[in-house]
Amino acid sequence: MENPHLWIRLDLANGHHIGPGKIALLEAIRAKGSITAAARHLGMSYRRAWLLVENINEALRKPAVTSVQGGQHGGGTALTDVGEQIIHIYHSVEGLTLTSAHQELGAIARLGRD
Amino acid sequence: MENPHLWIRLDLANGHHIGPGKIALLEAIRAKGSITAAARHLGMSYRRAWLLVENINEALRKPAVTSVQGGQHGGGTALTDVGEQIIHIYHSVEGLTLTSAHQELGAIARLGRD
Repeated sequence: MENPHLWIRLDLANGHHIGPGKIALLEAIRAKGSITAAARHLGMSYRRAWLLVENINEALRKPAVTSVQGGQHGGGTALTDVGEQIIHIYHSVEGLTLTSAHQELGAIARLGRD
Repeated sequence: MENPHLWIRLDLANGHHIGPGKIALLEAIRAKGSITAAARHLGMSYRRAWLLVENINEALRKPAVTSVQGGQHGGGTALTDVGEQIIHIYHSVEGLTLTSAHQELGAIARLGRD
């Protein structure tokens, strides 16, 4: 059986969590340029997406997501440098786990039923 | 700020998941010797604990938890060798992640608000 897929959640010491759902939302905002379009892309209500963004920004010293005023499309939402860093570091943690625990993940897979 | 705490869930290719809740239940069964006592220890209903055990066993080629008949205390529940292996491997994956991603976890911590 192929190795298991990993889900990692990071619980910050300030009580906030960063997991795959919030990372997917940040990536969707980066791709789509607005919370509305990101929420639609993920099949999530606008309200839920907005609350998650607020929660992410509250967890951090500087916001991960910011409003963009004006421009050709009348503004929207963009990732900040901190938002980009969070995505990058999160995927680094995933990659390091997959590499360093490759044998262990294989051992779990072999214990699993087909 | 101290480094974030990790939660890791392994999604097996057969569709089953192994995460911190199931590992804690296996450890409680090992410590307490019955599903009833393990459920009480974790503040979980007996029914929920029993369903989780059934789910864990369904995920694996050989069961992680087995009934023990007779004995001084009239039987109970014990971990099998596979159950011990699952706990051990799960914590190995956690430890390898903490070690290999130490810098990245520190970087996330530094982005977090106090």
